[in-house]
Amino acid sequence: MECVKNAWYVAGWSSEFGDELRRVTILEQNVVMFRNSKGGVIAMDDRCPHRQLPLSKGKRIGDDIQCGYHGLTFNCSGKCIRVPGQSGQPSSIYVDTYPVYEKHQITWIWMGDPELADVNTIFDMPEFTDSTWHAHQGEALHLKSNYLNVAENLVDPAHVSFVHPSTLGDAAGEDVPVHVDTKSDVISAWRWIRNAPPIGFFQQFGNFTSNVDRWHYYYLHMPSTAVIDFGSADTKDNLPEDQRSKGVRVFALHFLTPVTSEYTIDRWMHLRNTALGDGAASAEMDAMFKVAFAEDKEILEAVQEEENRPQTRQLVRIAIDKAPIAYRKKIQMLIDLENNQRVGGPT
Amino acid sequence: MECVKNAWYVAGWSSEFGDELRRVTILEQNVVMFRNSKGGVIAMDDRCPHRQLPLSKGKRIGDDIQCGYHGLTFNCSGKCIRVPGQSGQPSSIYVDTYPVYEKHQITWIWMGDPELADVNTIFDMPEFTDSTWHAHQGEALHLKSNYLNVAENLVDPAHVSFVHPSTLGDAAGEDVPVHVDTKSDVISAWRWIRNAPPIGFFQQFGNFTSNVDRWHYYYLHMPSTAVIDFGSADTKDNLPEDQRSKGVRVFALHFLTPVTSEYTIDRWMHLRNTALGDGAASAEMDAMFKVAFAEDKEILEAVQEEENRPQTRQLVRIAIDKAPIAYRKKIQMLIDLENNQRVGGPT
Amino acid sequence: MECVKNAWYVAGWSSEFGDELRRVTILEQNVVMFRNSKGGVIAMDDRCPHRQLPLSKGKRIGDDIQCGYHGLTFNCSGKCIRVPGQSGQPSSIYVDTYPVYEKHQITWIWMGDPELADVNTIFDMPEFTDSTWHAHQGEALHLKSNYLNVAENLVDPAHVSFVHPSTLGDAAGEDVPVHVDTKSDVISAWRWIRNAPPIGFFQQFGNFTSNVDRWHYYYLHMPSTAVIDFGSADTKDNLPEDQRSKGVRVFALHFLTPVTSEYTIDRWMHLRNTALGDGAASAEMDAMFKVAFAEDKEILEAVQEEENRPQTRQLVRIAIDKAPIAYRKKIQMLIDLENNQRVGGPT
Repeated sequence: MECVKNAWYVAGWSSEFGDELRRVTILEQNVVMFRNSKGGVIAMDDRCPHRQLPLSKGKRIGDDIQCGYHGLTFNCSGKCIRVPGQSGQPSSIYVDTYPVYEKHQITWIWMGDPELADVNTIFDMPEFTDSTWHAHQGEALHLKSNYLNVAENLVDPAHVSFVHPSTLGDAAGEDVPVHVDTKSDVISAWRWIRNAPPIGFFQQFGNFTSNVDRWHYYYLHMPSTAVIDFGSADTKDNLPEDQRSKGVRVFALHFLTPVTSEYTIDRWMHLRNTALGDGAASAEMDAMFKVAFAEDKEILEAVQEEENRPQTRQLVRIAIDKAPIAYRKKIQMLIDLENNQRVGGPT
Repeated sequence: MECVKNAWYVAGWSSEFGDELRRVTILEQNVVMFRNSKGGVIAMDDRCPHRQLPLSKGKRIGDDIQCGYHGLTFNCSGKCIRVPGQSGQPSSIYVDTYPVYEKHQITWIWMGDPELADVNTIFDMPEFTDSTWHAHQGEALHLKSNYLNVAENLVDPAHVSFVHPSTLGDAAGEDVPVHVDTKSDVISAWRWIRNAPPIGFFQQFGNFTSNVDRWHYYYLHMPSTAVIDFGSADTKDNLPEDQRSKGVRVFALHFLTPVTSEYTIDRWMHLRNTALGDGAASAEMDAMFKVAFAEDKEILEAVQEEENRPQTRQLVRIAIDKAPIAYRKKIQMLIDLENNQRVGGPT
Repeated sequence: MECVKNAWYVAGWSSEFGDELRRVTILEQNVVMFRNSKGGVIAMDDRCPHRQLPLSKGKRIGDDIQCGYHGLTFNCSGKCIRVPGQSGQPSSIYVDTYPVYEKHQITWIWMGDPELADVNTIFDMPEFTDSTWHAHQGEALHLKSNYLNVAENLVDPAHVSFVHPSTLGDAAGEDVPVHVDTKSDVISAWRWIRNAPPIGFFQQFGNFTSNVDRWHYYYLHMPSTAVIDFGSADTKDNLPEDQRSKGVRVFALHFLTPVTSEYTIDRWMHLRNTALGDGAASAEMDAMFKVAFAEDKEILEAVQEEENRPQTRQLVRIAIDKAPIAYRKKIQMLIDLENNQRVGGPT
C-alpha cells in the first residue's frame, strides 16, 4: 500500500499489551506484540521463517517466543535461539523486529528503517502533562476505508455541518469561510463562527445561556495524527483567536493506523480544560463522540465502496478542498522521498 | 457488461418509488431515484462528482438532492445549484440523469443515449386496458444469474416438463415438437399439447373435468421482456390456434432488469381472462407462480455457477435451442450496432 | 492445481454412496456419483454438456441420469441415450466417466487417463484382513489447506511434541533425532523415544504402570496416503524395532483427497492390535484423534493463510524437513513425468 514507512504509528493503547501474544496489523504487515518481563513492549514479524505459522499461535517461554508448529524459538531481538532436532541455529533463521515506544499510555511502532527511528519525533503536546487539563482515552473506531480518506476528513471543517448536524455542527456554519495553512509541517484549517447558538456538544457541556463564538481548528500531523481544537465562549466575551483556552476548550485527538489499503483504525481520545477528573463527563463526551464518529464511518465506508468501483469521470475539486489536497501532496512527497532514498542510498 | 444500452428497462414497479431517495442498480450503473413534488420519477447517477458519496446517502431539499458529505446540491436535471463554502458552481459539477417513463404502473428507465429515448417503443399490449382482462402485479425475483440465461429460459418451452412438472408442465409435453419464429422482431416459440390431462395450474383454475388442449406461446421482446401466453380449453371444443381467448388464457409477463453480469431482477406479473377482480385467485396464482419460479431460480443459479468455473469443453446445441440461439444472436447484433454507431457517429 | 492425475484418490467411505446422486469434488473436478442397481459406484462429470446444469441436480431414471433442465439422459458409460424434442443423439453429446474401485469399504477414484487405471496399485495392507487386528473407520476432516501441506504434516514426527503435547506427543520427544528413508517408493520417517512416561493416548489405552519405549513411524504413499505406525511397550521388555506388534500398536491411516488448491479432505481411520471388537475403545480413540486433528487443522489453516499473503522472504529449511522435502520433490517429479508423457505420447 502507498504509505510513509519511516514514521511512528500507533499500535494501540498501552493497556492493549500484556503478557499474551497479540497479532496487530499495520501497513499490511502482521506483527506479534507482547509486554515482556521488564515491562517493555516487543514487536516482531508474526510469521515463523520456517513454515510460516504466525508466531502469535505459539507460546511464550519466558521472554522468548516458541513457534507452535516445530518449536523454533526466538528471543526479543528476533534471533533464533533454538531449533529442535538439530544442534545450533544458522543466522539465516531470524525474524524482523520493530522499534516500539510508549508515551502518555500510547504505544507507538516504527515500521520503516530502524536506524532512522527517533523517539523525539513522536507526537506530543504540553496539555498531556498540564494539571489544568484532563486527558481521557476513548476507543478504537474500525473503518473499512483508506487512511488517506479518514485523515482528509479530519482536516475538513466543511463536512461538519452536513455530517454532524446534531453533535459537532449546524447550518450556521455551512457557508462560513475556511482558513487554511498548508505551508507548515502541520497542515491546518480553521473557521470561527461568531454569535450563533451553541452546537449540541456545548449545549451539553458549556452551560451557555446565550449565543456563543465557536471555533474549529484542525491540525494534521504527518503522516496520520489529527488534533481538532474546538470550543466555545460566550459571545459577550468577544474572545480573541489566540486566547481560546479562556473558553471551554477540547482537543479531540485521532491516531490513525493504516491496516490495509482499505482498512484503518482510528484510536480517538480527548484533552479538555473543563470538568477535570469528572468521569461522568468523560463518559458523556465519549457517548457524543461515538454518535459523531459513527456518522463519519458511514460516509467514509460508502466513499470507499465507490472508489472500489469503476471510475468513469474526473472528480471535481472545490474551494473547501485546499487542506485535503495539500495533505495528499505532502504524503506523496514523503513517499517519493523514501523511495528515492532507498534507491540512491549507500546500502 | 455485455448489453444493449439504448433500450428501456424496468427500474421497478411504480409503487416502489416515493419521496425517499432510493438506490437502484441497472446495467452495473448505480442510480438514485425518487418521485418529485410534481409526481414524476427522477433518476440520476448515484454518486457525487466531488468525493463520490452516493447521493442516496444525502437528503432531499424540495426537489433537489443535497449530498450528505459537503452539501453540494443538484436539481432534477443534474445541474449543481450550490457548493457550500464558495460562490458559484462551475458547469463541470453535474450528475448525469436518465429518462424515465411510467406506463401501466411500471417505471421504465433508458440507460443509453438520452436523445434516442422514444417512449413509443416501450412495451405494451392491449389487454392492459381491456375490461375483459384482469392485470395483476406479482413480485420481484432476484436471480444470481446473467440476464441472457434468464431470458433464454423464457423462450424455452422445452424446460417446462422437466423443471416444472407439478405446476406448469408434465411428462405429456416432453417430446411434443416446438415451433419457432426467429424472423420477426419478437422471437417466439410455441407448442400445443392436445387431448391431455390439465397441468397443475389449470387443474386449480380451469374447472376442467376432462382432457384439455393446452398451449404455451413464448414471446421474447428485445432486449429482455418476455410474454408467456398459456392456457387450456376442453378438448371437445377443438379450439383453433388463433382463438385462444375463448379458452382460459393467461399472459405471464417477465420484465428482466440486468443488474450486473451475474445478477438479474425478474419482475413478474400476469394478465388473465378469467376470475376478473378476484383477489383470492390472484393470490393463489401468485403462490403457484412462486413455486415455479423458485424452480427456475435453482436451475439458473446452478448454471451460472458452472459458467463461472473453468470451461473445458465446447457445449452442445440441440433441436430445442433454436429460439435461445436466435435471441443471443439478435442481442449481439444490437450490441454490435450500438458500438459501431458510437465509433462512426457524428459526435 | 498442481497434482498427480494418474493416481487413485479416495472419493469417500463406501457408506457415503447410495441411491442418491451426490456431488464430490476431487482435483477441482466436480463429479456426480451414485451406487447403481448392480451395487457398483458410478462416477461422471457433474455437468450436462448442453447448458451445464450439474447432473446431480437431475434425477435417476433406473441406472441413467436425466438432466434436470431439459431432460438429456446419460447412461452409466456417459453416453447420451435421449434428447427430448429430437430423434437421435449425436455422439458429441456425452459426459466423461471415471474408474471407481471399492476395497475395504473405501471408494477409490482415478482422475487421470482411464487406460492407465490399475486396481492392483490401490493402497492396501495385510492388517485389513488379519483377524488379530481391528479396523475402524473414523471421520472426514475438512481442511482449508493445500494437500501438500497436509501430507507433509503426516511425514513429520517433529511437530508432534509442539502441536499435540497432550495427546500424541510430549516434551520428552522434542530433541530426539528423526530417521528418514527417502529412497524407497514410500517415504518414511521415524523416531524411537525410549524409557519415558507414556503419552496421553497410551496412558488411556495401554494400561502401562511404568515408563515405556514408544515409536512413531510415518509412511507416506504417493500421492497422498499416510500410515502412522505408533505404539508403546513397557521399557522393561526392551522391544526390538522390528517386533513392534508385540507392543500395543496402532496404525493411523489418512487418505487425503485434494479438493482444490486450498482445500483438502482427510479421511482418517485406524487399525489396532488391541481391544479387538471393542466399540467403546473405538469411540474413545476417535475422540482423542479428533482432539489431535483439530490441533493440526488450526496450524495448517493458519499456514495456508500465510501462504496466500505476499511472500517477502526465502523460507528456511531445517534438519527435520528431510522427509517433507523429499515428498515434494517426488510429487513434482511425478507431475513432470505426466506432463511430458502427455506432450510426447502417441496421442
